[in-house]
Amino acid sequence: MNVVGLVSREKTVIRKLSIATGRQGLHEITPAVESVVRQEGVREGLCTIFVQHTSASLLVQENADPAVCYDLEQWLNRLVPEDVGLYTHGSEGPEDMPAHIKSTLTANSVCVPIIDGSLGLGKWQGIFLWEHRNHRDSRQIIVHIQA
Amino acid sequence: MNVVGLVSREKTVIRKLSIATGRQGLHEITPAVESVVRQEGVREGLCTIFVQHTSASLLVQENADPAVCYDLEQWLNRLVPEDVGLYTHGSEGPEDMPAHIKSTLTANSVCVPIIDGSLGLGKWQGIFLWEHRNHRDSRQIIVHIQA
Amino acid sequence: MNVVGLVSREKTVIRKLSIATGRQGLHEITPAVESVVRQEGVREGLCTIFVQHTSASLLVQENADPAVCYDLEQWLNRLVPEDVGLYTHGSEGPEDMPAHIKSTLTANSVCVPIIDGSLGLGKWQGIFLWEHRNHRDSRQIIVHIQA
Repeated sequence: MNVVGLVSREKTVIRKLSIATGRQGLHEITPAVESVVRQEGVREGLCTIFVQHTSASLLVQENADPAVCYDLEQWLNRLVPEDVGLYTHGSEGPEDMPAHIKSTLTANSVCVPIIDGSLGLGKWQGIFLWEHRNHRDSRQIIVHIQA
Repeated sequence: MNVVGLVSREKTVIRKLSIATGRQGLHEITPAVESVVRQEGVREGLCTIFVQHTSASLLVQENADPAVCYDLEQWLNRLVPEDVGLYTHGSEGPEDMPAHIKSTLTANSVCVPIIDGSLGLGKWQGIFLWEHRNHRDSRQIIVHIQA
Repeated sequence: MNVVGLVSREKTVIRKLSIATGRQGLHEITPAVESVVRQEGVREGLCTIFVQHTSASLLVQENADPAVCYDLEQWLNRLVPEDVGLYTHGSEGPEDMPAHIKSTLTANSVCVPIIDGSLGLGKWQGIFLWEHRNHRDSRQIIVHIQA
């Protein structure tokens, strides 16, 4: 147990980012978020990422072996099938209600401490935007930093 | 990518709210939370909502078509059935252990950035308290704002 | 609805803790986190706990009846079986891909308001590190406090 930092507080940063998705799947956004932290020169603080949609979600997950993301998608697609007989909400297409369920089971926001000027992620961790629909051009996320 | 705000920090607000639930299901609390933000006159910051229970949970989800909430409940009830044969914890009734599992799969706290004096929710997003039990009068949540 | 606190802000605390796990299951970390809050003398603020791994996760859950944790584990093990035929990612052992899925369904970070010098948990709530693998000595978590 060691103290990493005890610092005075300086500022709040709020940035809106538009993330191109295009297809269902996990899209890594670590570089985009890390870029905000570095541009703002934040040394210690808390970074909160929030997605302004309910048919896409956020996830901190392994970014080393792409098979992990592949298996995650396959598993979640089996758990939450695109079966119109299961749902009453169908006006936005057969993939929309499964997308809402998938976003419910994952995260709408994630919080990552900032340490020594970088996101305090573990060695194998990345931040992902999980697009649960096809044919969406982009998604809006908010990066909020309190330093 | 545009900068929305870079502001000095002003205060911490902590409010306890009692939310009437009564029956299993999704209860929208967006107006109650937004009301705290407006009353405090917070322009930029982070709003964290925390539920002090483990058989109820929080969710940011679509608040446009009520069929989405209906389908979510039905789907989760199928995934986590009230089947006493599946669980050893039964002292608080047959719906209690399923309620703990449901709260595990959803969120105990949600974080929403505050932008321009309002919650930075997407167009179709609302904040919900998900009551997983019947016959509960109310639930306690904490609204924490750092501005 | 009552105001608990409206206080000026003082500091940011970041602590890395190493949590011994050893075996799959829920390990309560409430005393370790509470200890940081008390040592730092924080009266009001927000405590964020972040786990730097993707085969372990965090959970706020009932800490009164141990049967709740037992049933949670059993249920999740049934939902996400160790069946190598289901996954392509197998290089780190048969329990690794299920562990990634389990961490996806639970939380990578949890936020708990600090009120009157203590974590604002409900009467029956505890914070748990959920180890999804066997044979891991310990896991690293970050406790971040903004006060």
